[in-house]
Amino acid sequence: MKVVETIAEMKQIRRKLAEPVGFVPTMGYLHEGHLSLVRRARAENSSVVVSIFVNPTQFGPQEDFNSYPRDIPRDLAMLETAKTDIVFIPTAEEMYPPRFGSWIDVEKVTERLEGAARPGHFRGVATVVAKLFNIVEPTRAYFGQKDAQQVVVIKKMVADLNMNLQIVTCPTVREPDGLAMSSRNTYLKPDERQAAVVLYQALKLAQQLWSQGEKDANRLRQAMRDLIQKQPLAEKIDYISIADAETLEELDKVKPPALVSLAVKIGKPRLIDNIVLE
Amino acid sequence: MKVVETIAEMKQIRRKLAEPVGFVPTMGYLHEGHLSLVRRARAENSSVVVSIFVNPTQFGPQEDFNSYPRDIPRDLAMLETAKTDIVFIPTAEEMYPPRFGSWIDVEKVTERLEGAARPGHFRGVATVVAKLFNIVEPTRAYFGQKDAQQVVVIKKMVADLNMNLQIVTCPTVREPDGLAMSSRNTYLKPDERQAAVVLYQALKLAQQLWSQGEKDANRLRQAMRDLIQKQPLAEKIDYISIADAETLEELDKVKPPALVSLAVKIGKPRLIDNIVLE
Repeated sequence: MKVVETIAEMKQIRRKLAEPVGFVPTMGYLHEGHLSLVRRARAENSSVVVSIFVNPTQFGPQEDFNSYPRDIPRDLAMLETAKTDIVFIPTAEEMYPPRFGSWIDVEKVTERLEGAARPGHFRGVATVVAKLFNIVEPTRAYFGQKDAQQVVVIKKMVADLNMNLQIVTCPTVREPDGLAMSSRNTYLKPDERQAAVVLYQALKLAQQLWSQGEKDANRLRQAMRDLIQKQPLAEKIDYISIADAETLEELDKVKPPALVSLAVKIGKPRLIDNIVLE
Repeated sequence: MKVVETIAEMKQIRRKLAEPVGFVPTMGYLHEGHLSLVRRARAENSSVVVSIFVNPTQFGPQEDFNSYPRDIPRDLAMLETAKTDIVFIPTAEEMYPPRFGSWIDVEKVTERLEGAARPGHFRGVATVVAKLFNIVEPTRAYFGQKDAQQVVVIKKMVADLNMNLQIVTCPTVREPDGLAMSSRNTYLKPDERQAAVVLYQALKLAQQLWSQGEKDANRLRQAMRDLIQKQPLAEKIDYISIADAETLEELDKVKPPALVSLAVKIGKPRLIDNIVLE
């Protein structure tokens, strides 16, 4: 496994990699969710590149860029075990040199949900992902369904700008009690960690009601809201959404595939999760 | 020479082209300026791709998208003579399918000159050029210095987004009297065509005064303005600029390389031209 820190070296090494090349972009502080992406990339490609980059441009000024958890030695050990070929770890200065100023804006699907709650977030995501795609030139790139809107945005960018790679979405990996794995789970205090399972419980409730015949999206949203509000550590519901899985437009009547997603503050930490009704 | 109309076919053919691949993106209605780009691409590469696409997203609502001159049979004959391998002529629907909505914004260098006069113009240019780069995957792409700001914008986009190609700028090709070749020259009535040489005369005047020692940018701008205002068919001066050739920031004192550029309406048609003081 080779660690690469500059764009020039990454581009040079890329030319010698055996095709096809699988790529897993991450912000580090890896967990089993990331590793499931790496394993899938390993199974489907001759070479595997993983990037670790906590991208400053996708964090808002009031967000957790500085406190975002980082542990490169631990990440490297995990990636070595998962048989990664190349780990690309650029600095912020390498990715955003002085006078940097070209941005990718994906319209409409970025306006709702995370995009509404986090202005500029998806501009930062789309731009850094496009840069990483140009640097790594992967055959396939792997993303977790956990960040469902991110996948929709990236797929739209790739299609609209005719980028030459395939986007592969992998299932959300969960803790035994159902909590979606996330680097931000490390922020949770013990009682908050227990309370955090309410996100998944709300999603499962919607799925259950839907499979029992409830097609009215507002009733499903309300049932989820009622459940979450019983949890005293759930301090704020940012959104509860039942939306078309491609356009992310809110639905009145559930028509599969529908994305059920939510963002909830459990104590201070803000968690997101989703399932697809299909 | 092969004519290709769909993105899928262009991507498929691209894989079989001999490397390196030279690419000349055009809006058609070709003239000797375009052909100079094609010849340079031919001399420097094993394969040459030319695109013809009048890109709707770089025209403002009051601009000349509908009347922009088009003559594909004539263009194809010229490209055949210049030994082009592939001509890519997509439709607007092929490039911008329903629900298209991903855009590239290059900051700062797009705010002045043509960007100020034509809001949204460079967003359309950057986006379509990025799409064409992803579709054609050229080793080198060739642009005319005639559209100086466009070259600055595209070079910035390529650098910022880490795109994998080289941008080659070729000198402006001029008519015997000095008028820069442009597809829009076809709009000029005979008396306007004669008057249009005033753009080049103003540029040459600035160059002459500068080489004689005049470093004050305002005096150079004023001398150009005085010259143009003597031409009765020069109906409106959009701008006269003396700017840093890379940042496009206006200069007080000329420091080479400086871009001297102007946009002037000769009758109805709006013409642009530039030279670099270096």
